[in-house]
Amino acid sequence: MDPKNRLNEDETKVNSNIERVRSRPFRLLEDRVTLAHGAGGKSSAALVEQVFFDAYGNDLLAQGGDSAVVSAAELIDAHGSKIAMSTDSYVVNPIEFPGGNIGELAINGTVNDLSVAGAIPKLISVAFILEEGLEFETLRRIVASMREAADKAGVTIATGDTKVVPKGTGDKVYITTAGIGVIPPERELGFEQVQQGDKIIVSGPIADHGMAVMMARGDLAIEAPIESDTRSVNDLVEALIKTADVRWMRDATRGGLATSMNEMARATGKAVVLEDSKIPVRDMTRGACDILGIDPLYVANEGTFAAVVSADSADAAVAALHAAGAEGACVMGRVEDEPAASVVLVTGFGGTRMVDMLVGDPLPRIC
Amino acid sequence: MDPKNRLNEDETKVNSNIERVRSRPFRLLEDRVTLAHGAGGKSSAALVEQVFFDAYGNDLLAQGGDSAVVSAAELIDAHGSKIAMSTDSYVVNPIEFPGGNIGELAINGTVNDLSVAGAIPKLISVAFILEEGLEFETLRRIVASMREAADKAGVTIATGDTKVVPKGTGDKVYITTAGIGVIPPERELGFEQVQQGDKIIVSGPIADHGMAVMMARGDLAIEAPIESDTRSVNDLVEALIKTADVRWMRDATRGGLATSMNEMARATGKAVVLEDSKIPVRDMTRGACDILGIDPLYVANEGTFAAVVSADSADAAVAALHAAGAEGACVMGRVEDEPAASVVLVTGFGGTRMVDMLVGDPLPRIC
Repeated sequence: MDPKNRLNEDETKVNSNIERVRSRPFRLLEDRVTLAHGAGGKSSAALVEQVFFDAYGNDLLAQGGDSAVVSAAELIDAHGSKIAMSTDSYVVNPIEFPGGNIGELAINGTVNDLSVAGAIPKLISVAFILEEGLEFETLRRIVASMREAADKAGVTIATGDTKVVPKGTGDKVYITTAGIGVIPPERELGFEQVQQGDKIIVSGPIADHGMAVMMARGDLAIEAPIESDTRSVNDLVEALIKTADVRWMRDATRGGLATSMNEMARATGKAVVLEDSKIPVRDMTRGACDILGIDPLYVANEGTFAAVVSADSADAAVAALHAAGAEGACVMGRVEDEPAASVVLVTGFGGTRMVDMLVGDPLPRIC
Repeated sequence: MDPKNRLNEDETKVNSNIERVRSRPFRLLEDRVTLAHGAGGKSSAALVEQVFFDAYGNDLLAQGGDSAVVSAAELIDAHGSKIAMSTDSYVVNPIEFPGGNIGELAINGTVNDLSVAGAIPKLISVAFILEEGLEFETLRRIVASMREAADKAGVTIATGDTKVVPKGTGDKVYITTAGIGVIPPERELGFEQVQQGDKIIVSGPIADHGMAVMMARGDLAIEAPIESDTRSVNDLVEALIKTADVRWMRDATRGGLATSMNEMARATGKAVVLEDSKIPVRDMTRGACDILGIDPLYVANEGTFAAVVSADSADAAVAALHAAGAEGACVMGRVEDEPAASVVLVTGFGGTRMVDMLVGDPLPRIC
């Protein structure tokens, strides 16, 4: 799918706008962000044209103005579709870490929020809050990886905004993305679809993102080559939906798998029973968690999701995820009626313990 | 229009979700924001339920999950419609100022960006970056005025996010909104519609917002009771479109009227000729600008827009704006072919001067 072609409304008009902008460029005279770059004048125009337009450049952005405009019929191709909208701010520290950076996180995170709602992500907006003094070289790296992440997920960066805050009132760069996706007519996902006996699948090993970010901060006594799991999951979700009776999905970001499972238990009133031995955690990640006394169930993921599927489609669901590249996908638990509205972990010795929601914040600014 | 009813998909389901959430509330134990409120666990849930849900509470938010889902057919009621998407971050300092606060600014700003694209605003997302230590009392005031602004504009706050950053890496609260609007089939607005001879209308007095924020900072040697013009303009825009041949519109925010007029001149290649004596500026605002040596043409507005209309519909356009409550609306200029791609100000003595885009930033963090 080439989103540029799909969303292009009037190629001639757009190309002439691009030509006009390119023929009379505003120049970026500095090597780092100043307050003037957020003021809306010539410096802002230079930043937009030389950094953002240069990397994202597509027909929607070339329209100019503060809104992206697309034909509804091109966006929504089937009668009876639904539209999904999602937003997230990203304040991760550090902004670059093994396996990713704040930019691809901001694209993947919103793509994934739409995907687990059953939506096919289409358009994404990006809003930057830059701290005065940020080097353009760093910003360009982040922006380039956003474009790459958007292309991989098949979404168009449709519109954006940039503000600059004085040194000491931000932290290099914060990014907020919002996304629009389209849910095809036949899809019915939601808490109310979840039934006793359903199986719970996880798409891969957990806790890598949070631990990778912790390691990257460099203020721990240990070092381990752990990489963030940041990725868009819309291809995995599509493979899953084509194969299995999917009831509900959720990406296990802030608060980790424990929190998303508690949200489901709370919303459905049912019991989420997880098998401790089935929950995949890489050895390196588990080791780091052990040393730091952090339960991997509470550590943020950025490319790993949980799905509830009918019991009889669970094997096919796992096979479909494996075939789509999610090698670590497996059944990790099931839905029961009792104990109501609770998450229970069955441990290796046949014992059980209740898994509560995260209290406090062991890992601040992880996403 | 009651957006709650229009977008309600399944009232029974939604009400039972609301009941469930209300019957088992998470409690907010602190009087100010802590890092735990951004961690995704119990404290985050308490913040969302006790502050945001309490103020915004509607059927879309009650769906739970990270995406709002609406029926495409309910959102887009006519074949041939277009969808507009817009986003803006708000970092204004101080967060409360005469005439408004950062919250209503964040709603009105995105509503207005959609409106001037010819779109009827429908859904809005809100993402908060809160600084550790912000008092909930302040946050509640901001959130309440966001709900009020959304209701006034007829948009639904569909989804949101909250992050918390440590003290010293933010400034109380930053808000990013994104919006979706629907452009009815017959509307064709854009730079390419602008013609030689068209009239340029301004919807009211300029420069109030920027000067009100400057005054509120209290670090100027003067005081003046100037109020921000923050408001949603979608009602004015609809009145205008119903009456006049509108070619193009733009709200004159960051960089002021001078910048939006330069953007038009640059995009169309035409000359924007403004009559200095016609551009409305309140006496108090002009006085403050004079004392500070700031040109009101470069000061941000948050509820004032410029519109290009056909010459023969200009009088009707102004009358329609007056009737809709924009008492200060008037014709302030016209579109000419020469000097190409330039903004010219005709001064009181019959002289002219070129009006360039803003260079530098006389008023940082104004929106």
